[in-house]
Amino acid sequence: MTPTIGVFDSGFGGLTVLRALMKRIPQARFAFLGDTARLPYGSKSRRTISRYAAESAQFLVREQGAQFLVIACNTASALALDAIEEAVAGIPVLGVIEPGASAARAASKTGDVLVIATDATVQSHAYAAACARLGLRALEKACPLLVPLVEEGWVGPLAAAEGDEAHAALAAFAPPQVAVTAEVIRIYLAELISDAAQQGLNPDVLVLGCTHYPLLRPLIEAAVPKGMRVIDSAEAAAEVALVRFGAAAAAVPQGETALRCFATDSVEKFERLGSRFLGQAVGQVELVDLGG
Amino acid sequence: MTPTIGVFDSGFGGLTVLRALMKRIPQARFAFLGDTARLPYGSKSRRTISRYAAESAQFLVREQGAQFLVIACNTASALALDAIEEAVAGIPVLGVIEPGASAARAASKTGDVLVIATDATVQSHAYAAACARLGLRALEKACPLLVPLVEEGWVGPLAAAEGDEAHAALAAFAPPQVAVTAEVIRIYLAELISDAAQQGLNPDVLVLGCTHYPLLRPLIEAAVPKGMRVIDSAEAAAEVALVRFGAAAAAVPQGETALRCFATDSVEKFERLGSRFLGQAVGQVELVDLGG
Repeated sequence: MTPTIGVFDSGFGGLTVLRALMKRIPQARFAFLGDTARLPYGSKSRRTISRYAAESAQFLVREQGAQFLVIACNTASALALDAIEEAVAGIPVLGVIEPGASAARAASKTGDVLVIATDATVQSHAYAAACARLGLRALEKACPLLVPLVEEGWVGPLAAAEGDEAHAALAAFAPPQVAVTAEVIRIYLAELISDAAQQGLNPDVLVLGCTHYPLLRPLIEAAVPKGMRVIDSAEAAAEVALVRFGAAAAAVPQGETALRCFATDSVEKFERLGSRFLGQAVGQVELVDLGG
Repeated sequence: MTPTIGVFDSGFGGLTVLRALMKRIPQARFAFLGDTARLPYGSKSRRTISRYAAESAQFLVREQGAQFLVIACNTASALALDAIEEAVAGIPVLGVIEPGASAARAASKTGDVLVIATDATVQSHAYAAACARLGLRALEKACPLLVPLVEEGWVGPLAAAEGDEAHAALAAFAPPQVAVTAEVIRIYLAELISDAAQQGLNPDVLVLGCTHYPLLRPLIEAAVPKGMRVIDSAEAAAEVALVRFGAAAAAVPQGETALRCFATDSVEKFERLGSRFLGQAVGQVELVDLGG
């Protein structure tokens, strides 16, 4: 079988990680699995999450021939990386949290960073721990409304755009739905920055610690204080993957499919929303049964 | 054992139904079970939902001596009422959808009603079917942001208040979080009312088809067109329960606890958020294991 990078998420938010990977390592073949039947992982115990993640990883390795694994799920990266490595012994496994923390260290001058993520990721304090290991002080904040806002599509048609163009376009045209999302982001960031100041922190980096948040990047960049850098864990993970797997990833023979997407449930929702996360059509999503 | 009304929900949103029941039938004893370990039901198959709901109902009947059951979960009411009745043969079972539809018929002069609910409830079209059986035309709309907004607490301290006082207070004082929720409601209702007009409907009733929505009632009432009545399925179910179970519900002996709350997981979140839904302290929540 042609070498494949396996990408795993509890849902389809991890398609933003796949998108970053496909941009960085365009010559590789990819297999993406969303364990949509058993999401959300965030409300489950470490033992259960480890079992689900291990089963998913084994599917990508044994059934799809993945020779490298990227865990595009913050919860699984935080709680189940050891269990996954054990389940697919010999296959290199990369999570999204360590790369996010490393990128934050590279970007921060003050050594103080902010992290926004889901409730489950924040409660695991995995980003704070990874940052601490690199000598950074991190303050984390759960932003539970951002995932449903993204899934509702209230990100505007411009979220796919990047950089200054998106900012200018947003300023000129913001439907009420996008204005709501912008206001939610403003409220969350104001609370977080105020908390940071009270704790004597001087943050100059904001880490997007959830796979859904890259779709909000233009709105988030418009909301952060001047000079604060926004770090996307998905992009950071893709950078690390390029270094570790890039050279080894074989070219895809002409005429063969370079991407296959699998889900354990809700294939229709995956196909409908997935293209927004991937930035291109996901094509047909194949249903798999992992038991459990 | 003293007669007990068992109240079941997939989460703790059903506490708004319990609240309405306790107000209507204050002399009864109540046992509430939230199947928090297995939520959300909305994304699962009818077969799985039926099994979970039947197990939960059996716990309330066999372990807690419930002699009447109220299914305070729109998804379970829509998909599993038959399975529950079979599982607890001989025990009267009341869902929230039929009472909501009946109350809508009593309130509507035009015969056209609007229903807002979660994605799962709307996809089941259970409200539209129940309304059609009563000769009403119903248009349903999923409002996926409202549950997370309620769970985030962006309903303001005034959501517990009722009627004109709440409206006046809201107009005078709305923190930015509440303004966001009000704007989300305005956007959803504008879309729904526009769709209704395009279909030639002339709705004069709006049904709150989700257990979380009563906490948004002041904001929703402020947003509907003048003359449109807002019907709360929780209150409608409590009215029906009073007629069916009220006389039979025995008085609670003095000194005995009139309410026990159970959950299959996330007891801490239940205790923390539950009081907001119940309108009073939920007290200690007992953890139960239903297997599965």
